[in-house]
Parts: sequence; structure tokens; C-alpha cells
Amino acid sequence: MTTPIKAALLGASGYTGADLLRLGVRHPGIEFVYLTANTHAGKPMSSVFPHLGGVGLPDLITNEDVDFSKVDVVFCGLPHGTSQTLIAEIVGKNDHLRVIDMGADFRFRNPDHYQLAYGARHVAPELQAKAAYGLTEHNRDAIRDAKVIACPGCYPTATLLALLPLVRSGAMSTDDVIIDAKSGVSGAGRGLKQNTLMAEAGESVSPYAVGTHRHAPEIEQEISLVSGAPVAVNFTPHLIPMSRGELITAHVKLGNAQNADEVRAVLAQAYADEPFIRIADKGVIPSTAHVRGSNYCVLNVFEDRIPGRVIVIGVIDNLVKGSAGQAIQNFNLAFGFDEAAALEALPLFP
Amino acid sequence: MTTPIKAALLGASGYTGADLLRLGVRHPGIEFVYLTANTHAGKPMSSVFPHLGGVGLPDLITNEDVDFSKVDVVFCGLPHGTSQTLIAEIVGKNDHLRVIDMGADFRFRNPDHYQLAYGARHVAPELQAKAAYGLTEHNRDAIRDAKVIACPGCYPTATLLALLPLVRSGAMSTDDVIIDAKSGVSGAGRGLKQNTLMAEAGESVSPYAVGTHRHAPEIEQEISLVSGAPVAVNFTPHLIPMSRGELITAHVKLGNAQNADEVRAVLAQAYADEPFIRIADKGVIPSTAHVRGSNYCVLNVFEDRIPGRVIVIGVIDNLVKGSAGQAIQNFNLAFGFDEAAALEALPLFP
Amino acid sequence: MTTPIKAALLGASGYTGADLLRLGVRHPGIEFVYLTANTHAGKPMSSVFPHLGGVGLPDLITNEDVDFSKVDVVFCGLPHGTSQTLIAEIVGKNDHLRVIDMGADFRFRNPDHYQLAYGARHVAPELQAKAAYGLTEHNRDAIRDAKVIACPGCYPTATLLALLPLVRSGAMSTDDVIIDAKSGVSGAGRGLKQNTLMAEAGESVSPYAVGTHRHAPEIEQEISLVSGAPVAVNFTPHLIPMSRGELITAHVKLGNAQNADEVRAVLAQAYADEPFIRIADKGVIPSTAHVRGSNYCVLNVFEDRIPGRVIVIGVIDNLVKGSAGQAIQNFNLAFGFDEAAALEALPLFP
Amino acid sequence: MTTPIKAALLGASGYTGADLLRLGVRHPGIEFVYLTANTHAGKPMSSVFPHLGGVGLPDLITNEDVDFSKVDVVFCGLPHGTSQTLIAEIVGKNDHLRVIDMGADFRFRNPDHYQLAYGARHVAPELQAKAAYGLTEHNRDAIRDAKVIACPGCYPTATLLALLPLVRSGAMSTDDVIIDAKSGVSGAGRGLKQNTLMAEAGESVSPYAVGTHRHAPEIEQEISLVSGAPVAVNFTPHLIPMSRGELITAHVKLGNAQNADEVRAVLAQAYADEPFIRIADKGVIPSTAHVRGSNYCVLNVFEDRIPGRVIVIGVIDNLVKGSAGQAIQNFNLAFGFDEAAALEALPLFP
Repeated sequence: MTTPIKAALLGASGYTGADLLRLGVRHPGIEFVYLTANTHAGKPMSSVFPHLGGVGLPDLITNEDVDFSKVDVVFCGLPHGTSQTLIAEIVGKNDHLRVIDMGADFRFRNPDHYQLAYGARHVAPELQAKAAYGLTEHNRDAIRDAKVIACPGCYPTATLLALLPLVRSGAMSTDDVIIDAKSGVSGAGRGLKQNTLMAEAGESVSPYAVGTHRHAPEIEQEISLVSGAPVAVNFTPHLIPMSRGELITAHVKLGNAQNADEVRAVLAQAYADEPFIRIADKGVIPSTAHVRGSNYCVLNVFEDRIPGRVIVIGVIDNLVKGSAGQAIQNFNLAFGFDEAAALEALPLFP
Repeated sequence: MTTPIKAALLGASGYTGADLLRLGVRHPGIEFVYLTANTHAGKPMSSVFPHLGGVGLPDLITNEDVDFSKVDVVFCGLPHGTSQTLIAEIVGKNDHLRVIDMGADFRFRNPDHYQLAYGARHVAPELQAKAAYGLTEHNRDAIRDAKVIACPGCYPTATLLALLPLVRSGAMSTDDVIIDAKSGVSGAGRGLKQNTLMAEAGESVSPYAVGTHRHAPEIEQEISLVSGAPVAVNFTPHLIPMSRGELITAHVKLGNAQNADEVRAVLAQAYADEPFIRIADKGVIPSTAHVRGSNYCVLNVFEDRIPGRVIVIGVIDNLVKGSAGQAIQNFNLAFGFDEAAALEALPLFP
Repeated sequence: MTTPIKAALLGASGYTGADLLRLGVRHPGIEFVYLTANTHAGKPMSSVFPHLGGVGLPDLITNEDVDFSKVDVVFCGLPHGTSQTLIAEIVGKNDHLRVIDMGADFRFRNPDHYQLAYGARHVAPELQAKAAYGLTEHNRDAIRDAKVIACPGCYPTATLLALLPLVRSGAMSTDDVIIDAKSGVSGAGRGLKQNTLMAEAGESVSPYAVGTHRHAPEIEQEISLVSGAPVAVNFTPHLIPMSRGELITAHVKLGNAQNADEVRAVLAQAYADEPFIRIADKGVIPSTAHVRGSNYCVLNVFEDRIPGRVIVIGVIDNLVKGSAGQAIQNFNLAFGFDEAAALEALPLFP
Repeated sequence: MTTPIKAALLGASGYTGADLLRLGVRHPGIEFVYLTANTHAGKPMSSVFPHLGGVGLPDLITNEDVDFSKVDVVFCGLPHGTSQTLIAEIVGKNDHLRVIDMGADFRFRNPDHYQLAYGARHVAPELQAKAAYGLTEHNRDAIRDAKVIACPGCYPTATLLALLPLVRSGAMSTDDVIIDAKSGVSGAGRGLKQNTLMAEAGESVSPYAVGTHRHAPEIEQEISLVSGAPVAVNFTPHLIPMSRGELITAHVKLGNAQNADEVRAVLAQAYADEPFIRIADKGVIPSTAHVRGSNYCVLNVFEDRIPGRVIVIGVIDNLVKGSAGQAIQNFNLAFGFDEAAALEALPLFP
């Protein structure tokens, strides 16, 4: 057995941090030597997340107390806006370090677009230039060697896995792309908000951030890049009364494909060798329950009643393939492990 | 106090029948003299629905045991396909009878369209000609005097309340109308199906009947009628892990309106005097939780990121405004009661 | 029509306040002239609770801005500890005022017991002496004329409705009374707490406040009063992944009754004339779903496998019969209305 | 790598069967060569459980089509009453076979007790004599070599893990043992029942099988065996609106222990070396969410308000530690694997 890769996790008290640990502590090649959560520093991990007790994790400390010279990789689960400065600093001082960021700070290839979406000037544009957009299946070459791997947002992950092969092949048009998305409440994080209280979010469905969600420009960035022209998309997320899971319903116009079968065939071919992407059998409808807790993404395509259109459905677990699982998949790629290491678990159903 | 209207309810063992009773037993002008449920005949109502015990309802009997000469109105909650024959027969024999049907059998103005949607020839086309489509706010004149009032499906109710004023005014285009709908599981009825078991439907979201749902042609019928030309719509329903509630997210192109504010103004004007339709304040997002258990419908309009498009949101309780409440509203209209009688209850939140 | 009773509601931004309004705005004899919520003063009610919009409620103000000389009754939904001083003050200055308190501040007949349970000295012991414990079915004489009506906690309501007739009659023993209770999350209020986030409370069950919940001494007070000797009870509440509803499972030893049937008969006789208490048919199991949104309480009794013991089950809606509904029932009693006024709605099922 | 153990799974279309596969397909030493589901014979596994697609499982066949001479172990997930005959027959004909039964047919050490509980004569009493009760932590010696391993019911698993060390040590009394249990709906299986429809079970809590549940005599059997005298227990299960998870709240009298701390210490000592049993820190309340999807059991002990009593809390995932996980743990024990093989996954939270 080889020496494990030493890892720090910054932001261990949020759901994405917790899910990275849930998966990562069973990884044969990772040793977590530092876990940070500034407001919980000094506490054992089990006091913040009881389900992570008893597995030998180090106690929580502050970001300042990490000795980054002693780790090989930093997983970052900090909120957007807080990680740019920190990551730029630690990478600047520790040339050997690689960073896998689950936050939003390095997702925009153009720092100006970051500023437009997040309302603040990007403070590490040089490092941004060395960052790879971490949508594993579509960017392996860049991810493999990148200093910073910027894992996509959960919604962009599901959407781009569903649509990028169709945009690339021309099977779909990039006009009037409508992405009606549905997510469980864990996507809103562990912060205290009235709208994610069980009494409010349970037995209820509502859209949110209609027309203004920050994942829209991220989706547009990648679709535009592949299509070669600026694309605007409709992106309408809805809050669903469940903890985990994300479903996107993409209503799109056909491009050079003639019907749903041809569109489906493009996806099937694009993902034929992918371990985590499944194209459901014709007519079988994907459900978030069928990927719960796993790194899988299931896709399918259906005819629309309106001629010349199809409906593309995609499901992921927002915390796994949409965040922590994809981060580990990228880690595996970057550090030479089997891409599925620690991600083998099948979905938890029911 | 005047003599109450004597009513029979056919199909009292389903959710729509139960909700009609929940509301109707508190109506000052209705007396339920017959309740039918062929498979439960002989049982007290409380054995089928414990929440309806103790309020003096008659025991369940078969449809055959009803003496229709003794009632003034028949509420019908039978499954589609089963009520056409029965309703035609009882109306034929009892000239004084009026029927308020919560099922699908008389919703299609053209019997051929019924056959296309439901796969069976319409057996009472003459009676269909005397039926009124029971979307109260948009068809009062016809409902007031109709022999048969065919209450719309739950999805058409929410969709048409949101869109008909926009089609009529030309504010929206009828090209590429995309209706992404979400419903709680009570919409699937009380029949035993694997996909509505709690272990399957809980903690899960998935579309169903993609491109094939029977409410799509019903929506198309009414939009086409108002627009004056045949319209095809995308209609994609999703099953949400909650009992009640329905939300439609309509992604539409602007017609003669310039933006979301103008579209919103059209709705506000159309519904200014309606007791049950509310246009939410600008920017406020409707939630199904805010209409739960009530006859209210809340609407709002948002700008899309794609120029020339808007997003129209509508919420109802699928069993109330989407079925039993609308039936009572139509009863009130047809029998001269205040339209809100028995429907005054405010939404149950949380 | 007589002049309506003018009411102020203090603490209108919590769930109990909202439910009091949901019911109260449809009461034929109440006019809400003041609504308070100190942190939301100046806002319309609909901005705090959208489901209460459009019904003509006054905007929220601070407690200080209420002119108590202009109201007849004060409903109080303030957190415990905050209402004693305020209520003592306003009652002191406004001799005509009657107060119906949904909080805990006047529930303890002995101010020392309040201090033991809530950890603070009671500041209005003289007023406490004029307060009536507002368990309607068991204390009508006192409630009818009381200056302050202290509505019981939700758990004591369900527990005492189930057990008091059995203690009074001697049907059960007061030794080893074990009350295993289950409640939806609305019982925890609208305050932001991690454990009532949907991602935490959903798909989960856990006990809380084991052995330490403040409703235990309240239950003990009333049982001891009826039995004539100090009684200690086990009270173990559990948080259930639902919004509303409360179920108590009381595991008790038989007293002078021989079996479950006899115990059931005692309850049936005690509540024979009560409009809101139902004894389910023998063998029929009460469910919180069968009282949802209503002021009903359903009870039943079952044999235990251990000889000499029975299991008493009771269900209520914690926000209605357990709080706001009981408050209105007490209002009706105190102000001479039919006790069921504004409480006629049948349970919302499903 | 050694040759994998060849396994058949009988009853692969139920939830326990599915969870056995979810875990088992990632076991390094099991190869599933036959999967049966008589009503689904001929179908691929993915058509019954989409989440198990794409992992190379054999198609479903009938029990009759299995060649038991070609397998080493049979996992049995058949309903009670159906497996006795079949298991007796295949074990009779295939001397090498070992059977791990997740059903109830071999759980009663005395066949007469089986008859009392399940209402049918035991048809394989000789084989019963060779069966081991599969509560791993308390019966390893017998399990290691048994022909038939009868995995306990889910409720007995949680209850006995919590109480057996206390009975054995005398820390608790066996008088008046009250077990108030709560379970998610997956415990009711995948069969179609009205009470497990989402519209009925969601937003609801109710007890069921009060005083009559078949897991009660199973619990009594093991407690009586350890205590050396017949013990009757109260066992009152409740249906909780969630898919997975089981919590038992045991209200017990102290025996030779003086208080909750001493009781807790007995559990801590008994399970000090167990990989899957955790005693929560003092005061920390176990939640089913903290074991979801895992083979862990978490226990804790609390003081009661009634002197001389304590409250013991235990949580498991009913489908894992309560069924399929325990079956694999027993397999590991019986076939010489590390007891945690394929069971390493940490709980899925949130």
C-alpha cells in the first residue's frame, strides 16, 4: 500500500463538506489531516455531524491553524467569496498544493463574468487562469494537471451533462433553451433560513431565484464555449420537499437531430464509456430516488407534443455528483486513482 | 332558512369525493342524501374516511340504489369512462337534475377529441352538447344554466387561469407554450399504485406521462378556442413528494406585451373582481403552501433571461380549486348562492 | 348583527398567531383591530404570512403602539417569559380587558411551579390567581369568567384530554404513567433552529428534551389536582417529519377498570356531549391525519400485552386544538358564542 | 483473489432483497448467480429496481429455475410462510448449502411459538433445530456454523441490541418493559396497501398493530431466554412519514443499576469492541437520520422523571442493520470474511 495523499478540508461544517468526508474517509488513498470550520473550531466532528463520529477524524480547527505545507491536496467547501483570497494565498505559498474547490469562486473562466454573477470583483484572476472547470466527463485533460479544480455548481452539473453533447453535435438548437430545475433543500445549505424550515418547505413546492439564479450564467458560459457563440438560457429552479436530489427538465428545440431517438443516441454514444452516466432505457423516466446518495447521473430524452422539440431529463444527487462526489472523482483523476475510487456505492433506494 | 338543495355524490370513496364532502357538509344550502361507492356499499362513510365521521352523513350505497328523482343535483366523482353512460341515463330520466361532474367525461367540446385523448368513443355526444366547461372564472354564462357542468382537470385549471387572459389579450404568443407542472400525489388518486407508495414517492421527484398526459389536449382545446387557431402545447407534469398542491411554471413568449410587468397587469385586470384569484405582489413567488386546503389560486409573472419571454407561475390546491372546490363554486353559481359559500376557509399554513 | 368583539393579537408573526388569524378572520363576531410583531412592525401581514393576504387585516405594529382601551379581548401568542409583564400591565390599566394567552406564562396554578419549570420567578402572581387553566372541556366554569385564560400547552392538551377522565374516575392508576408523544415540527415554532431545517428533520425521527420537557410538570399539575396527590409522569416527546399533528401514546396501568373496553367506556361517557372530542370505534386507530387543520381530538384505548395495562391513544392538531383553536373555543365560551363558532371546518385529509 | 462465494437471492423484488443487492454487489467475495422473483421472472433487475441497473446482475427467474447445486449460499427475502417449505426442501437436497433468511420463518426457537405468532403450523421443525437466531452481536458462536441463519425482525434487532445487555447484567428489571417503536414506511414492504400511500402516510403519524404485532413475541423470546423466565413486553409500533429508519424508545425500570449513567456504562462495556454499535455521548440524542443507509446502531440512555426508571433509545436503518445489512454481517461471519465487508459505508446524512 502506498502512502495516502494527505488532505485538508476547509469548511467541514456544511453539507458538502460532510458529504466529502462521508465518501472520503472510505477512500483507500486519502488521509484527512485537517478539518476546518471557523465557528466550530475545537469541537470534534461528531458534535457537528453525529453520523461522522467514531471514524477517527481530527477535531475541527480554524483555517488559520492549518499547516498547508503538510498536505498535498486541499478540498474547499467554503462559501463563495471567502475562498478566492484564501486559496490564492495558500497556493502562492505552497507550490506543491493542489486545490479542489466545491465553491463558486473559480468557476468563471472570465473574471468579469464572475463579477457580473456574484457582484464582487474577482481577487485572484491570475490563479483563475490556472483553474480547470471541473466537469469531469467533459474536461479531463485540463483537470488532470490543474492547480485549482473548480467543481461546477450542482445545477450546471446536471444541465451540462444532459446538454453539452447535444450542443457539441448540433443535435439541439441553442435557441430558447429552457431549463426547469427541481432540487431538494440540502442544496440551500445548512445555514438557518426560514424558507428551508421543515414547516415551510415541507408539503410545498415553489420556484425561487426566478430568472436570477447564479447558476444560469455558469451554464451559459459552458454552452456558449461549446457552441462557439453567446447563448442565453432560461433557468428556473424549484425547491422540492426532500433533502437530496436534483432533476432538470430541459425543453429544447431540435437542431440536426430529427427526433428524441436520435437525440438519445447522441447521449448514449457520448457517454458509452463513462462509469457514472447512464442513459435510461427508452421510455423509462429518471427519478432522483434512483441516484440518491450516489455519484450516478441518469439521462433520458422524450418527444414533445410541439413538433421540432424534445424534453431532456437528467437526475443527480446534488451533494454527490453535484458536489462532493464530483470533487472526489476529480481528485481520483488528478492523483492517478481509479476514477470510481470511493464512489462505488449504489444508490440508496428506497 | 330556505330548504336545502338535495344532493347525491357518486364516487364518495375517492379523494375528490371526500374533499367535496369536507367542504359541502358545511355548506348552508346543501343536504347530502345519497353517497355512493360501489365497492364499499353498506359501510358508514367514517370507515372509508375517518375524518368525515360524526357529521351525520348517510352510509355508502351503490349507484343503482340512488333514487335520482329525490335529488336536485348530482356531484360526480367517478373515474373517466364510467360516468358518461350513467350521467346520460340519469339525466335522461330526470329532467330536473343538474350534474356537476369532477371527472373527465364531459370536458371535451368535440367528442372526437375525447376519443383521441381517452381512447374510447364518447357515448353521450348529445348531452355533451349541453355541457358547460366548468372553469368558473372564464365561463360563467354557460355554467349558470348548464345541465352538465364539466369541471376542468386540475392541471388545466391552474394553467388556464394563468394563461387564458394572456391569450385572449394577445399579451403572450401561442407559439412554443411550455408548461412545466408539479403536483402532489393526491392527484394520482387513492388507487393502489407502486409509484405513489410513500417509500417510492417520498424523497423523490420525477416527471411522468411526458408528452402524453391527457390534460394536455384539454389545455390545448381551451387555448385554441380563445386564440381562434389550433395550438399545441408542451405539458410536462412532475410528481412531487407532498400530498396536495399543484404549481405550473409556464414558459411563454411575449405577444403584444413588452415585459413581465405588462403581462402581470393583464392578469391583475382580468381578475380584479375575482374572490379566489390573487396576483402576488411584484417579485413575490407563489408557493403551493400558500393555497393549501383552500379554493384560492395565486399567480405571478417574472422576466426570463431570454429576451422576449416571461415565466408565469400559478398555484392551486389540486383537490380544491382543481376539483372539489371548483365544483362547489360552480354549484353556487348554478343554484344562486354566493359564489364563495362553503369556500371561505383560508389556506392551511404551515 | 351585533357589534363584533374588538380584538388585538400580540405576536402575530408566529405559527400560533397565524393560525389564530386563519380561524379568527372567519369568525362572525371578532374584528381584529391590532396585530403586533415587534420585529416586523410596519409590514403588511401578507409579507410575513402570504396565505393571510387579501383579507383586510391591519398592518403589523409594535406592542407599544396598541391602544388597549379600544379592544375587548387580547389574544397573546408571545413567547413564554415575555407576556407576564405585558399582560399584567395592560390588564392593570384596562379593567375591561380579557386576555386569552396561548403562551406558558399563566399555566401554573402555583407560581413556584412556574419558576421550577421555566427557571424564572413569576412576576405577576396576583394575576395568576385570577387566571383559569384553559382546557375547555375540563374547566368551563372557571374559563367563562376568568380575566386571563391560560390555554394549555399542546402536549398537555392531548394528554389531559386522554387521561383526566380516567384519573378522575379511577379507571387508571397514577403510578408509572408513561406518555410517549410525537409532534410535527410546527410545534417548535417559526424560529430558526438547525434541528427543524427540512434537511435535518425530514426523513428522520428522534426524541428531544427527554425527561426535561416543560410540558411534563404542566401535565403533572393537572393530573395531581384531579387525583388529589402528587403524581410524576414520564413524558418523552419525539420530533416527527411532518408540519402539523400531535399524537400521544399513553402507557398506563389499570385502576378500577378491568380492561380496555371499560376504559374506553369511561372516555365515551365523559365526552358524550362534546362537539370536538371523538372516541374512535373499537379497534380503529387514531391518526394525526384525521384531525389535521381542525379542532377535533380523537381518542381510543387498546389492550396491552402486559396484563393490567392499557394503551390510550390521542391525536390533535397541535396548532388548532393544541393552541389557536382552543383559544378561539375559549373565546367563544367567554364571550357567549356557540363554542364551535369559526371552528366548524372538518379535517383536511389527505 | 480467491473465488467468490456463489449466491442466490430468493425474493429480489422486495425492499430487503433490493438492499441486499445494493450492498452485496459491492462485496469483494460474493457473486450473485441467481435472483428470483416469481411474478417478475424474465425481467432484468433494472426494470424492477432502476437503481440496480448497469451492474451486471442476472435477470430475474422463478425459484423453481434455480440450480441450488451451483450456489454456496442462499439469501432469502421471501414473505413469511413461503420460505419454510422451500428452504427445508433445498437444504434437504443440497447438503452444502447455507441459508441466510431475512424472513420470519426460522426466528422462533420453539415451533409452537411460531404457530402462536403467525397462525400456522411450522412445517420444518427439524431444520428449525439447526437454525441460529441471527442477532450477530449476541449469537456469534451459533451463527458461525449454522445451516440456517434466521435474521431477526427489524424491531427485535433494535430492541434487543438496546436491552439484552441490560437484561443479562440485571441492570434493568424485566417487569413492565414498554417499547414504543417508530418506523419508516419501507418496513411495510413494497406491497400495495392504502395506508402506505404517500397521500395517507405522509404528514401523519399513527400507531399500528397495537398490542398484536408479531415482533413482540420474538422480542419476548430473546429477553425471556436471557433472563431465564418468561417475560411479556409492551410493544407499540408507529408508522412515521419517512422511508427508512427505526427508533425504539424503551421505558424500563431499573434493576441493579442505580441510574442512567450506570445503565449506559453497561451498554458501553458490552459493545466496546463492536464495529457497528455506538453509544452516543452522554446527553446526545440518537436520530434515525444519523444511521440512514448504514449498518450502524446508535444507543443512549436517559433519566426518567419517575424515580427508578430510565429511557433507552436505539436507532437503526430498518433495511440495513434491521435486515439486509445484518444478513451480510452474518454472511461475513459464517464465511470467514471481515465482519464489516461491504458494510463500511457511513450513514447518508442529510
